[in-house]
Amino acid sequence: MERLIEQLRKLPGVGTKSAQRFAFHVLRSSEGDAAALADAILTLKKHLRLCSICNNITDTDPCAYCTSPTRNTRLICIVEEPTNISGIEKTRSFQGLYHVLHGTLSPVNGVGPEQLRLRNLWPRLAETDELILATSPTVEGEATARYLLDEIRKTHSALRVTRIATGVPAGSDIEYADEVTMTRALEGRRDL
Amino acid sequence: MERLIEQLRKLPGVGTKSAQRFAFHVLRSSEGDAAALADAILTLKKHLRLCSICNNITDTDPCAYCTSPTRNTRLICIVEEPTNISGIEKTRSFQGLYHVLHGTLSPVNGVGPEQLRLRNLWPRLAETDELILATSPTVEGEATARYLLDEIRKTHSALRVTRIATGVPAGSDIEYADEVTMTRALEGRRDL
Repeated sequence: MERLIEQLRKLPGVGTKSAQRFAFHVLRSSEGDAAALADAILTLKKHLRLCSICNNITDTDPCAYCTSPTRNTRLICIVEEPTNISGIEKTRSFQGLYHVLHGTLSPVNGVGPEQLRLRNLWPRLAETDELILATSPTVEGEATARYLLDEIRKTHSALRVTRIATGVPAGSDIEYADEVTMTRALEGRRDL
Repeated sequence: MERLIEQLRKLPGVGTKSAQRFAFHVLRSSEGDAAALADAILTLKKHLRLCSICNNITDTDPCAYCTSPTRNTRLICIVEEPTNISGIEKTRSFQGLYHVLHGTLSPVNGVGPEQLRLRNLWPRLAETDELILATSPTVEGEATARYLLDEIRKTHSALRVTRIATGVPAGSDIEYADEVTMTRALEGRRDL
């Protein structure tokens, strides 16, 4: 029991209390359910991996995006985490490929360029027309976008590199926009 | 007492309960305080008006923005309400003039173009290089921006008309951006 609680506590956002609740749930559940949970964990680890091209989580390598015959292979969207892909897919307005960094530059947390999954990005650039930097407009996300732009410019000075718009969220009153967002919304204004 | 409650209920967001509370507050306060409140109301009405040029609330006509010698008079930012001006001023990134609509198009609420303060906008356009439509990215704000663009294009086909950026707010993780905002952030991406 102690050993299970200890392991469960390693899950993100799970403290001792939650871990105990989970452990008691396992204790109360049928042997079949417990085996199914253990098996699901092992199967996941055995079958899921990172796509060797884009670093997305996948059960086939390359992943479904990288092998899709209908997507624009000359357009790459760089995201921080695999979960960001589903957010962009929901918009149905992006038909290119992805590249997942698995993090953002964060010197305080010891995350430098070496910790980002960039090695397999560089070879892709020769076959690319546009690279969208879709890291978050946070301090870390902006620093990461800036770093990537600088690195890309060293070898691909003519490649089109774009940044997603920062601005007032759709459906929101500008009355509630903070100063930085409002500044960016004005700076990023578009001709009609 | 009834008469005061009735008048107080006309204030925005004030129901019978709040109006009664306000009225009892007046009843309990000193005669001097009550007189000061009444006087403040009368003074406000006597001294505050709308700027005849931009419709901003002001105690001098034209207002301080419209008469400022340091602002760019050839750049006009259109906003929904006078309160939006302070939000934009806080950014310190806008040095032009304003035009306050005092509302947005909202057919369900009976607000048509006639209810917006537009009559004094048209004569200003001849002396303008750029018009920023800074209505909110809400349904009403977008409809208002679209209407204004169509009207402006009828007479000033070459005038630069821009729209503030819709996108992920500064400091926010793209993980929390809704679909419409993410779509707009991708569509509105900028070249770096």
